[in-house]
Amino acid sequence: MNERLQFYYAQDTCSLASHVALEDAEALYDLHRLSIEQGEHNSGSYLEINPKGRVPALVTPSGVLTETPAILVYISQLFPDAQLAPVGDPYQFARLQEFNSFMASTLHVAHAHRMRGHRWVDDEAAIEAMQRKVPVTVAAAYSHIEDFYLDGPFVLGQHYSVADPYLFTFAQWMEPDGVDPLQFPKVAEHREMMAQRPTVRRALEAEAA
Amino acid sequence: MNERLQFYYAQDTCSLASHVALEDAEALYDLHRLSIEQGEHNSGSYLEINPKGRVPALVTPSGVLTETPAILVYISQLFPDAQLAPVGDPYQFARLQEFNSFMASTLHVAHAHRMRGHRWVDDEAAIEAMQRKVPVTVAAAYSHIEDFYLDGPFVLGQHYSVADPYLFTFAQWMEPDGVDPLQFPKVAEHREMMAQRPTVRRALEAEAA
Repeated sequence: MNERLQFYYAQDTCSLASHVALEDAEALYDLHRLSIEQGEHNSGSYLEINPKGRVPALVTPSGVLTETPAILVYISQLFPDAQLAPVGDPYQFARLQEFNSFMASTLHVAHAHRMRGHRWVDDEAAIEAMQRKVPVTVAAAYSHIEDFYLDGPFVLGQHYSVADPYLFTFAQWMEPDGVDPLQFPKVAEHREMMAQRPTVRRALEAEAA
Repeated sequence: MNERLQFYYAQDTCSLASHVALEDAEALYDLHRLSIEQGEHNSGSYLEINPKGRVPALVTPSGVLTETPAILVYISQLFPDAQLAPVGDPYQFARLQEFNSFMASTLHVAHAHRMRGHRWVDDEAAIEAMQRKVPVTVAAAYSHIEDFYLDGPFVLGQHYSVADPYLFTFAQWMEPDGVDPLQFPKVAEHREMMAQRPTVRRALEAEAA
């Protein structure tokens, strides 16, 4: 590829999943940090890249990509040697998308009701009511993951995939979401294993730098 | 394939998107209706298929699949002759996943705050507060779709894909979601075009039968 990928992220957000996948793929990319606190995700120059004002965004030679499941599928297809997705098997490939879609539309949404309740209500009392239920809804999502994935060391079983950094990213927030990791031993073990992976450590260090 | 696909749906839900895609693919499948009103999605026999108690679910020869974006990607890969996804182009394929992920995690979630608020709060006043914001959040999602997709008759431009029945499924609910279709002429035109497609009509007729 002639052009390097340009990756836009914010610390302590779901963009970590794509960042780790870029490291797993040994992709050549430049890292661009946005401060959510300073509102940089809603600045004019970033809205030209991602008009939704969200992270992550990946600028590719073909155009911009947003939405974590899409960026993960792109990285896994652009760097097939890294074997980050079971691309040859339509069922297993769809099963990976099933997990990633569940992460985006159920676990992430449940989690977002804790700190981003204003997305869905304007009323302060309602925001607090939402926050009270977060430990329940987030735990329900982990319960599903514990029971129906992680049938091996990795989310999809014996093989590492882009689903693994996606789970790790959220599993870091179990305690602030009011969920006890001891309730979900497979998720907790996966979190510990992932925290030791060199690609995860490199991504976390780069984001903290 | 030796085994026919088994498709589980409920009327007036997001399962219509996958149903239309099965028709577009000319797949051989059996249709299984669940009544949400009668709680059949939470019955023991259905929970064995989809422990999340949601529709759609697709039972394939390799196992069960849930989550609309995953079922759509499976159908498009299992029936390549139907050309329901740009499978040869990693960027365009990811762009399709980007749209489908946005549908699942933003538009569907915004819409669900109208009738399924109990997923995220227990408090009646908070549920009403959520309902009040639905027209705003749903309209914001359509505004993004109007501005950044539909650059042609179809969601991805000149070529039909599984993104089209996904958009159509939700666009049917613009009025009950409190959104005026006249505000979004490209979405409204797409909705009219889709409503005339034979595969959409067949799916709607089968669900109403």
